[in-house]
Amino acid sequence: MSATAYADLTRTFTRLYRFRHLASLAGWDHAAMMPPRGNDARAAAMAELGVHMHGMLTDTALKAKIDAAEQEKLKPIEQANVREMKRSWEAANLLPAKLVEDMSLASSKCEHAWREQRPANDWKSFAPNLEEVVRLTREQATLLAEAKGTSRYDALMDLYEPGMTSKKIEAIFGDVKTWLPDLIATVQKKQASDSVIAAKGPFAIEKQKALGLAVMKHLDFDFEGGRLDVSTHPFCGGVPEDVRITTRYREDDFAQSLMGIVHETGHARYEQNLPRDLVDQPVGVARSMGIHESQSLSFEMQLGRSKPFLSLIAPLVREHLGEQPAFTAENLGKLYTRVKPGFIRVDADEACYPAHVILRFEIERALMDGEIEVDDIPALWDEKMMQYLGVDTRGNFNNGAMQDIHWPGGAFGYFPSYTLGAMYAAQYFATIRKQIPDLDQRIERGDLAPIFDWLKTNIWSKASSLSTDELVVQATGETLNPSHFRAHLERRYLG
Amino acid sequence: MSATAYADLTRTFTRLYRFRHLASLAGWDHAAMMPPRGNDARAAAMAELGVHMHGMLTDTALKAKIDAAEQEKLKPIEQANVREMKRSWEAANLLPAKLVEDMSLASSKCEHAWREQRPANDWKSFAPNLEEVVRLTREQATLLAEAKGTSRYDALMDLYEPGMTSKKIEAIFGDVKTWLPDLIATVQKKQASDSVIAAKGPFAIEKQKALGLAVMKHLDFDFEGGRLDVSTHPFCGGVPEDVRITTRYREDDFAQSLMGIVHETGHARYEQNLPRDLVDQPVGVARSMGIHESQSLSFEMQLGRSKPFLSLIAPLVREHLGEQPAFTAENLGKLYTRVKPGFIRVDADEACYPAHVILRFEIERALMDGEIEVDDIPALWDEKMMQYLGVDTRGNFNNGAMQDIHWPGGAFGYFPSYTLGAMYAAQYFATIRKQIPDLDQRIERGDLAPIFDWLKTNIWSKASSLSTDELVVQATGETLNPSHFRAHLERRYLG
Repeated sequence: MSATAYADLTRTFTRLYRFRHLASLAGWDHAAMMPPRGNDARAAAMAELGVHMHGMLTDTALKAKIDAAEQEKLKPIEQANVREMKRSWEAANLLPAKLVEDMSLASSKCEHAWREQRPANDWKSFAPNLEEVVRLTREQATLLAEAKGTSRYDALMDLYEPGMTSKKIEAIFGDVKTWLPDLIATVQKKQASDSVIAAKGPFAIEKQKALGLAVMKHLDFDFEGGRLDVSTHPFCGGVPEDVRITTRYREDDFAQSLMGIVHETGHARYEQNLPRDLVDQPVGVARSMGIHESQSLSFEMQLGRSKPFLSLIAPLVREHLGEQPAFTAENLGKLYTRVKPGFIRVDADEACYPAHVILRFEIERALMDGEIEVDDIPALWDEKMMQYLGVDTRGNFNNGAMQDIHWPGGAFGYFPSYTLGAMYAAQYFATIRKQIPDLDQRIERGDLAPIFDWLKTNIWSKASSLSTDELVVQATGETLNPSHFRAHLERRYLG
Repeated sequence: MSATAYADLTRTFTRLYRFRHLASLAGWDHAAMMPPRGNDARAAAMAELGVHMHGMLTDTALKAKIDAAEQEKLKPIEQANVREMKRSWEAANLLPAKLVEDMSLASSKCEHAWREQRPANDWKSFAPNLEEVVRLTREQATLLAEAKGTSRYDALMDLYEPGMTSKKIEAIFGDVKTWLPDLIATVQKKQASDSVIAAKGPFAIEKQKALGLAVMKHLDFDFEGGRLDVSTHPFCGGVPEDVRITTRYREDDFAQSLMGIVHETGHARYEQNLPRDLVDQPVGVARSMGIHESQSLSFEMQLGRSKPFLSLIAPLVREHLGEQPAFTAENLGKLYTRVKPGFIRVDADEACYPAHVILRFEIERALMDGEIEVDDIPALWDEKMMQYLGVDTRGNFNNGAMQDIHWPGGAFGYFPSYTLGAMYAAQYFATIRKQIPDLDQRIERGDLAPIFDWLKTNIWSKASSLSTDELVVQATGETLNPSHFRAHLERRYLG
């Protein structure tokens, strides 16, 4: 009996998975271990591997096999796998190699120059490079949009959030815009009279690391299948069988690193708990960037910055960093829920963060759909920052539209994932709270298993077997509903 | 104008080099970083990469290109490159895939069982597994020998020491056997009256690491292009642009780890100083295992354990590990040159080490050439250990023929490299001493540049452009001459 097209495809994707293992390892090592003089050789090795993997995905026989597999009698999970295989095929085949290469060169050039232009606040020199990236991204988006039958921006967003559309996002973000600026102003007024005790450093890095590891243990990170290391930009990498998370330490501030570790542990547990029997298939990967972020933010925002969790870990903080007045559960709670509008997205608190994202979404959508040009960005930025956060950014390009690496790198359509993640997380926890009325008491005594069980059953174990909407409806009974996020903010910050 | 076969070949080997970069990284990570549950996925990824690289080397077009390149008008260095390309081609093509796979399975099985059989001293269960490895290695050796026109053992040794023959080794080792047992006995008698002060631990691992890094700095290790980490079995890995060395620490003994770091730094500097313009070509790699070992042993034995070097680093030892009577230069010298025959090769001192190697060479040569069988090994082992080192190993299989991983792993023909390395190192330093009469004074004041310059000019920069004999003759004026090794031992231990 001859092999089925489906069986044949699974073998090809298993091989791709193994090569991706090496790509992922090389990426982690590059960020966390590699000395500087290894850079050129590493870049060449990773590019060579990339070419090889791209060659496997653009093999002319592959599409015919996918078409044939679609006609075979398959189980639902296998059908879902073929659907995800097709997505991988599209991502590799819809764009001509020349365009991909031009894009890679343009974004490298833009990013490289940006590293000096940003500190110099030099928008004038930055703009033409960004224009070239935008031009090429629009070309890509046009090709993707034609194949997918969507708008240009939606075709790009689909790379990160399959099934999401700007129409849905506009409805969701439109709702948020009606109440968020007021909420931020009210919280600030309320917090003005709070007395918060600052933690006194320095905090030795070895001690911070030991504290981080102790907290990861509470969060059930599997140390037999993963590691914690250091990199300039924290991330979660590796492979599901061996997840590598990183953080960065500052001797004068333990708080950011600690909560960063909690955040990455959320990503890590998703990866560590993806279904192992499908680990080497496209259907076995995380559902989307937004769903991935919903895990890190479940850990960081829903759990990590909650009072009961901070009560749980306050003794660990004191044990590792020493006794100080700042280390009561109550004061830690205040430190971790301080609301203060600022310029920088990555430094933003939980309440202000969505405003940063909405602003970027609105600008990049209009940019990709051809309604505005690069030159229009600074004025729009200033206007929206004032409108959403009351912050004056005029002339401050480096802390304005030049602050993120996404646009110079050509990653248009990614930003919404951050806030979608925050909203999904709030929606999950609303469901979990209904199912477990004494959730806070359980958290406070370290009984986190019900949370992890819920996430494992409803999110982690599903991988990419369902669409995002199906996943969220099965888990919570409804599609994405931003009212849970609003209720969460109101309870935490105005309650 | 069409591309030449040679230019075409260089591109293929550049691609292979880039894939080997990833293989090397994955191997280093496996030993130094990877948590245990990552093992299966890593093994699968490395095997997939191995299959791909093997596929590139067994591409039927490759041999035709090598044949064509041999007819092209090439520069000498290009001719040498083609010669080394052919060696790579032979290593991949002379053995049928089925035999390679059978060998891989048999050696994995033997090694895996050996990990439990060795501590259980269970030669009876070990022997049949080893017999299968020997049977398959002989099959491989027969095929290689037919192609190369050599004996079976020589065909295997050629994989590690191109150009070396058992006839040459027998002459060299035969000479050593006439004087080494007497020398060991004499040194032991001489050292019996020495008073040696033991160093008092524990030595914190962080402090040992800092000491190791300080010594590596003296040895000009390029930290911008390499790292020091920890693994169970110390090694030098990575790639020339990014060399990864490892050590292991014991809290009760700093000496072994420190000299291990010096040893691996020797390997590392060879790699770091291979000619960078040829780094991605077969002619750009280290000449042989013996020449590689000659670098680590130049660092460890010729330099590291010498009195002037120990005078140089004694203050560093005291600075990092604290003042103690054991840490005078004189006492460190005694600690590092103690001679005492024992069972274990890897624990052997400089004088006894060759005896372990000669014994293994004699047994494995006879085994491969079909003069003896696996069952004959224990008796031969006992006899030779008694003859060369005066040590009784009867019934002590785990500390006898079962102590090394080489034979279970199928690496017959490798052992001579260790002692060839020690001899080459002695021969280099005899030459260096002639050229620099005040060498010891220079070492003592930290002026190591003349040594490194000599090694760089004569060994590192040559990579595989010359045959081993040519390399050594150009560097020292003669082919390998064991009298320098004897003179070195006599000066150090009987002087």
